[in-house]
Amino acid sequence: MKAAILLTGDEITKGIVKDSNGGYLAERLTALGFEVQSIVVVPDSREFIKREIRSALDRANLLLITGGLGSTFDDITLQTVADYLGRELLYDSNYYSALVESFTRRFSREAPKGLKRQAFVIQDSVQLPNSSGSARGAFIKTDNNEIVILPGPPMEMEAVFKEALKHISLPSVSYSRTIGFVDLTEPEVEDFTEQMLSKFPGVKFVTRVRYYSGPTVILTANDESVLEELCHLFTDRWKKYIYTTTGEELVQVVVRELRNRNLTVSVAESCSGGRLSAIFTSVSGVSALFPGGIVSYSDEVKMSLLNVNESTLKQYGAVSEEVAFEMAAGTRILFGTDVGLSITGIAGPSGGSDSKPVGLVCSGVRIGSSIKTYTDRFRGDRETIQLRGANAVIKKLWRLFWNEYYIE
Amino acid sequence: MKAAILLTGDEITKGIVKDSNGGYLAERLTALGFEVQSIVVVPDSREFIKREIRSALDRANLLLITGGLGSTFDDITLQTVADYLGRELLYDSNYYSALVESFTRRFSREAPKGLKRQAFVIQDSVQLPNSSGSARGAFIKTDNNEIVILPGPPMEMEAVFKEALKHISLPSVSYSRTIGFVDLTEPEVEDFTEQMLSKFPGVKFVTRVRYYSGPTVILTANDESVLEELCHLFTDRWKKYIYTTTGEELVQVVVRELRNRNLTVSVAESCSGGRLSAIFTSVSGVSALFPGGIVSYSDEVKMSLLNVNESTLKQYGAVSEEVAFEMAAGTRILFGTDVGLSITGIAGPSGGSDSKPVGLVCSGVRIGSSIKTYTDRFRGDRETIQLRGANAVIKKLWRLFWNEYYIE
Repeated sequence: MKAAILLTGDEITKGIVKDSNGGYLAERLTALGFEVQSIVVVPDSREFIKREIRSALDRANLLLITGGLGSTFDDITLQTVADYLGRELLYDSNYYSALVESFTRRFSREAPKGLKRQAFVIQDSVQLPNSSGSARGAFIKTDNNEIVILPGPPMEMEAVFKEALKHISLPSVSYSRTIGFVDLTEPEVEDFTEQMLSKFPGVKFVTRVRYYSGPTVILTANDESVLEELCHLFTDRWKKYIYTTTGEELVQVVVRELRNRNLTVSVAESCSGGRLSAIFTSVSGVSALFPGGIVSYSDEVKMSLLNVNESTLKQYGAVSEEVAFEMAAGTRILFGTDVGLSITGIAGPSGGSDSKPVGLVCSGVRIGSSIKTYTDRFRGDRETIQLRGANAVIKKLWRLFWNEYYIE
Repeated sequence: MKAAILLTGDEITKGIVKDSNGGYLAERLTALGFEVQSIVVVPDSREFIKREIRSALDRANLLLITGGLGSTFDDITLQTVADYLGRELLYDSNYYSALVESFTRRFSREAPKGLKRQAFVIQDSVQLPNSSGSARGAFIKTDNNEIVILPGPPMEMEAVFKEALKHISLPSVSYSRTIGFVDLTEPEVEDFTEQMLSKFPGVKFVTRVRYYSGPTVILTANDESVLEELCHLFTDRWKKYIYTTTGEELVQVVVRELRNRNLTVSVAESCSGGRLSAIFTSVSGVSALFPGGIVSYSDEVKMSLLNVNESTLKQYGAVSEEVAFEMAAGTRILFGTDVGLSITGIAGPSGGSDSKPVGLVCSGVRIGSSIKTYTDRFRGDRETIQLRGANAVIKKLWRLFWNEYYIE
């Protein structure tokens, strides 16, 4: 079964809002067994939206439309879909009263007139409740297709999409497995995958690159046991490079490895400014082994809280393996953990020099009483360098565990 | 002048990669004065790509195509565009040698065969160098249109797009201003903007919501002085709600306000796990006033490093205004700053209770010797709650500055 996604909104075609709904819906539909034929973004124009509805319904059984359900003048999705289908737009006065009451209760101000726009419904459509906001979605069945209308704000879209799943006709299931690699390039992963899959004609695959960790390959098939067998073949051949065969993020694997070894971890970060802590705290339940982290942005904090020596800072500079070494050591005294991670670098755009250019990042990993330090050079803007630096530390810790570098 | 954007890749239509190129290019093209007619994502299929090229060239002067320039079998963009235009694909043996040499130098392994794919060029096209990777872009002029082919990885796409700008025919300039609001809803901002713009027929606008701060309105016109006048009218009327008329992020404004008052700031965060520090350190040059922050994830760290009382934790629980108060106070001793911010909450998905549900977030702002505390309830998944919590603290600090709540 085929699906198409249509995203509406000047704010997206003008680049003011970065769309994330297209990716979310594509992922969910693919997991449900749909083939996504296209993701199209058009401005808030009746003509453009109608043309794309026509084109999408030509090639897909299911069409999802997001956006344009708000209370401002460019919110035209309901009207446009009704026009396209030749159906009436009906006014729901009960819902309007509820909207006005809710606004005045929440903001203690008079409700803006535009709210009325959200009280219209398309004739013969199912209203989909929105637990995160005021714009309801709609499910419409025509002779040959199904159309779902969803609000634009991502959280509301997700809430209403879940409601829509109660009505959408679903394809028969297929299975998928995601294998994640570090320290390999995408063409190498693909070369090997192609060779291996020549013996498994029913299996499809696609490779991608997780921007801050490495390539992954996603295998899909109608037979779950074939995928299981393939995952074994992959790990036999590439064990050293594979951190997951079930789609986990690298940090989830690292947290499990720490838990299995009964190790606690803390971080001391400078250039990454909180992003290394944020990666760890993205994992639910990490509090059992991650008591905390410090952003030691100034030299004074490095000295007073992490016991970095003034002479080390003077002799080698704040961005040096020597300082990374002392920062990793300092986390032990501060947080009393088994593992201490440190990172110090130049995120830019200013602050670089010939000998220490923007993108230079030094890091340290302390496990027990042993400390390893590293120097990397990352490309990109300030945020990219901050994120690459933080994620690189996670990779190094994974690699050390893999190499069984672990001193009691 | 009209532009269209075509993004190719199964990894996007399957939802495996969340696209960010569409938004980047839409923003840049809009700023250059183009009207973006559509952003379309299609799978790696010759048929689909050709159909969309045809449809895009019907409605746009300029077509940008991203993706499909890599070294794997589904990288078919060059071949497909050449076919569509009826041009030859030529092999560049010098470039191939350079690619192989660079791979073996970098990885000390044999180069994969697929690299050869990146050494082809379309007849009569301009090659666009790629400073971030190995896939070159291309600029092609036809009788009626211009086509630019860019690589898919965002950093490479951006680097090659900059090269493409040397060749693309640009529209005459227009000007734009972005006004940012806090504590107002989007329909209220729009109601007012509509009224005001009735007297300025040459000015266009669009509203959007910055997901973690509030609504913005973007005004565009061909006359810069009209926009200047309008910004004054907006600030006269809505001063209390406007933090920028030049598109700055809220944290940039807050950092400038701190700098103007000669104040330093530090943070103590629990549920947001580093994201509040990360917001501050996204601002280049913040190190002059932000010595650091602490992620005090465990109760032990809250007590030992922030001097939170054990009795306060026992009596009120870690998520309480009382603990937020002591955490904000504790940053002073730890970092010696004028302003101390704190946040403690339940990010979920587990850990909530009837009296303290998931999404409950307490925060504190210390300025000088005075401390204010707050309780909020946020909806969303773990990451959304972490980000909303962190951003809410920035908003509260801005509001206190605006209210001139500031004790020496």
